[in-house]
Amino acid sequence: MTKIRELNERFSDLKKLKYINNLLEWDQHVYMPEKSNKGRAELIELVSRITHKKLISNKTQRLIEQAERINDLNIIDSAILREAKREYEKAIKVPTELITELAKTSILAYKAWKEAREKKDFLRFRPYLDKIIELQKEYADKIDIGLTRYDSLIDEFEPGATSEWISEIFNRLSIKLKTILKKLMNSNDVPDQSILNKYYNPKKQWDFSIKILEKLNFDFSIGRQDKSVHPFTVSLSSTDIRITTRIWENFLPACLFGTLHECGHALYDAGFMKEIHNTNLAGGSSLGFHESQSRLWENFIGRSKEFWDYWYPQLQKLFPEHLKKLSKNEFYRSINSVKPSLIRVEADEITYSLHIILRFEIENLIFQDKITTSELPQIWNEKTEKLLNLIPPNDSDGILQDIHWSGGAFGYFPTYTLGNLYAAQLYHNALVKNPHLQNDFSKGNFSGFLNYLRDNIHQYGKIYHPIDLIKKISGENLNPDYFIHYLENKFFPIYSV
Amino acid sequence: MTKIRELNERFSDLKKLKYINNLLEWDQHVYMPEKSNKGRAELIELVSRITHKKLISNKTQRLIEQAERINDLNIIDSAILREAKREYEKAIKVPTELITELAKTSILAYKAWKEAREKKDFLRFRPYLDKIIELQKEYADKIDIGLTRYDSLIDEFEPGATSEWISEIFNRLSIKLKTILKKLMNSNDVPDQSILNKYYNPKKQWDFSIKILEKLNFDFSIGRQDKSVHPFTVSLSSTDIRITTRIWENFLPACLFGTLHECGHALYDAGFMKEIHNTNLAGGSSLGFHESQSRLWENFIGRSKEFWDYWYPQLQKLFPEHLKKLSKNEFYRSINSVKPSLIRVEADEITYSLHIILRFEIENLIFQDKITTSELPQIWNEKTEKLLNLIPPNDSDGILQDIHWSGGAFGYFPTYTLGNLYAAQLYHNALVKNPHLQNDFSKGNFSGFLNYLRDNIHQYGKIYHPIDLIKKISGENLNPDYFIHYLENKFFPIYSV
Repeated sequence: MTKIRELNERFSDLKKLKYINNLLEWDQHVYMPEKSNKGRAELIELVSRITHKKLISNKTQRLIEQAERINDLNIIDSAILREAKREYEKAIKVPTELITELAKTSILAYKAWKEAREKKDFLRFRPYLDKIIELQKEYADKIDIGLTRYDSLIDEFEPGATSEWISEIFNRLSIKLKTILKKLMNSNDVPDQSILNKYYNPKKQWDFSIKILEKLNFDFSIGRQDKSVHPFTVSLSSTDIRITTRIWENFLPACLFGTLHECGHALYDAGFMKEIHNTNLAGGSSLGFHESQSRLWENFIGRSKEFWDYWYPQLQKLFPEHLKKLSKNEFYRSINSVKPSLIRVEADEITYSLHIILRFEIENLIFQDKITTSELPQIWNEKTEKLLNLIPPNDSDGILQDIHWSGGAFGYFPTYTLGNLYAAQLYHNALVKNPHLQNDFSKGNFSGFLNYLRDNIHQYGKIYHPIDLIKKISGENLNPDYFIHYLENKFFPIYSV
Repeated sequence: MTKIRELNERFSDLKKLKYINNLLEWDQHVYMPEKSNKGRAELIELVSRITHKKLISNKTQRLIEQAERINDLNIIDSAILREAKREYEKAIKVPTELITELAKTSILAYKAWKEAREKKDFLRFRPYLDKIIELQKEYADKIDIGLTRYDSLIDEFEPGATSEWISEIFNRLSIKLKTILKKLMNSNDVPDQSILNKYYNPKKQWDFSIKILEKLNFDFSIGRQDKSVHPFTVSLSSTDIRITTRIWENFLPACLFGTLHECGHALYDAGFMKEIHNTNLAGGSSLGFHESQSRLWENFIGRSKEFWDYWYPQLQKLFPEHLKKLSKNEFYRSINSVKPSLIRVEADEITYSLHIILRFEIENLIFQDKITTSELPQIWNEKTEKLLNLIPPNDSDGILQDIHWSGGAFGYFPTYTLGNLYAAQLYHNALVKNPHLQNDFSKGNFSGFLNYLRDNIHQYGKIYHPIDLIKKISGENLNPDYFIHYLENKFFPIYSV
């Protein structure tokens, strides 16, 4: 048994190196002076070099082999071994030169993408995207985890998921979403969103977000919130979990739902059982599962009637100039207005997943060698029209809008929608098991739901695969119908459909 | 020549690990949530373990040996080799068990010291201090750099300095300081310090400190200022240098001179020539030299008449309720009032060094085995009476006031006063070479003096030994007379002596 402990210690060091990397990145995005980038990049490079060397060393291999010969590993130790093997085997399969090439190309591609987006010109980005795709194909061939190249890439983010499985789910979802959307768009009872675009004092927005965090049991003694351009959540240990938000003076939802979203991630990372702190299991079961937590707090709860039963009077008091005369119901409708738009990050709960389905379908085509990048803008625009009934006027509002591909993150997008689907299934399960929960929310009591999440999800970290975990909790596989029913039950009344 | 480059790269990695450690500590003191200590300690421990392993590896030894066989090293490369050797040899001489023992004992001793200080009871700290001293003696024997044990410890902080050399300087200084102090204390024209203890709005204090930093050429594009309990300066690269300050509502000098002090340190760390960035030469020539920079900006400039020619009207405008009717001269006198006190960190420019001399003499006796810790409080009190004409009413205002010994930092204290002495000699030299400087200060122009410091000191980092550097600049060895003359010329007029 000391063998498994040694293995654990090695991967615990690797986990700590990850935490150190996280601090370097957190600081970079939150407090680092503007001209300190070069020095910071060098520190991050060193940590990644040390990490890689430690991971692919003979000692790691020996420890894994020794642990594999143990017959009676408990559930935690065998999960530690499983994750260790997964990480080690991927690392040794990929030549260091490829890693370096990927890192270098990403930096150039990111610059080219930024420039291309500014100039609204995909052609400036295309040669870099070609190179990135070529390298990602090589990478997929090397790690060779899935049935297809794209499957290998998806597995990085969502262990066990395949493009075929996702296709099936997304196809069904796509039809249903378009049907719902059509019904809503035909309604004459449309919410008015304009109230959200008034001026809201930044300091008051910030204070309100802190108040919400406290009430949602975000523990400030082991966490903090700061501001950054793009909100994110990061762990510096299992007892140091930080989120960021952004404040837009003329758009109330940015800070509000940004905070709620990241709070969901943070509560997950703060909920691992002590036994897996500092191990390679101290993380979300998958990106999709992690995203389910952020969506639950941001959308399922944060945009619910019950949530605002409790919070709206306080928000009214804070911003009487805009809200004093606006009813709770009108406010609730305003934060749930639905409208097809070109930009993913601005999308509502209905159309968001259509944006994701578009990206998934395109990635699938790319890695099946069915399209070349020269066709991409056209295919993007065609699919946008088909899914959202809109045509991007330029590349920046279309194919160039997301950063992901410039960094080589193919297979990442689907996890956003998987997150929504997991969230709906979990929320349904939680309400069945605890019918009083929504009533609790109305009274400002969010502990019951958090306890459900902790008991069923958070504590386990990566012990269970996402596919096993959802079955363990709900008794069935991931089923998109929960999400569809949730949307119908919520949005049809809002739109008087 | 590639051999020296390889050595440089290795020590560059070690430097970067130091920067990473610095970020972990900066964050710990500035933004880390209160209950995240354990996780943070584990990350710091990992970095120190990786650093130690890299430093004492066979590869490091081989690279040093190879570099030593090169005949025509330039001045930078031979300094890199010198520092590499110094660090490597010290590291291999000390057994890992001793390092671990020292670290563990320090943690316990720190706790005991805090408790003892609260209870004003030295006896609670004594057994831990005994252990710390025993381990430090063992450590000194292992590294065996100086003629005596104490010399070995001093050399850690002030390379090349010996207890004999410091004794000579301090003996002369002690007599002179007591003479000056006596004259001032006999004066009837005593400055009134009470104005500094009024209420000063914290936000205004902060803004004023930022304004000063900007004017003093602290570069906010590669640095920042934050708040912490104890002010400090830290580098996260040669282009990311951060300081902290503290604000006391009822004591104006805390923030003001805290900022000036740390700014001095920061300007040094921001001034290294590009060629030594990321090398083991990217640091102060010694602790004493580093302290000279902070003292120059805090005292020699920050408490000078000329400085306040420029700044006092602005300060008056900021706090008219207290300062409108107070003349510039009275303000200048108030920030330069002299009074023997029991606490080192509250001491003025005259008595500060007497506090240091006391500590130096006691450390010297301890490491010569001339006294035991049972005699310490009595000796402390006797020396306090002799030097400051005061008797501590309890241990907390005496022997227990400083944190240093609990962490095993013996030989550190003298560098504070060496800093004053270096500062005086440098200031004299700067004024001889640039007679217009004080006139510049009156006009709010501080660039001329910074350029002098950059040209003569900052750019070189650790290329030169402090002993060589002061001679290179001023043409003579460290000479305490400059400090004495500076004090006499400044304080006799203030006290109408």
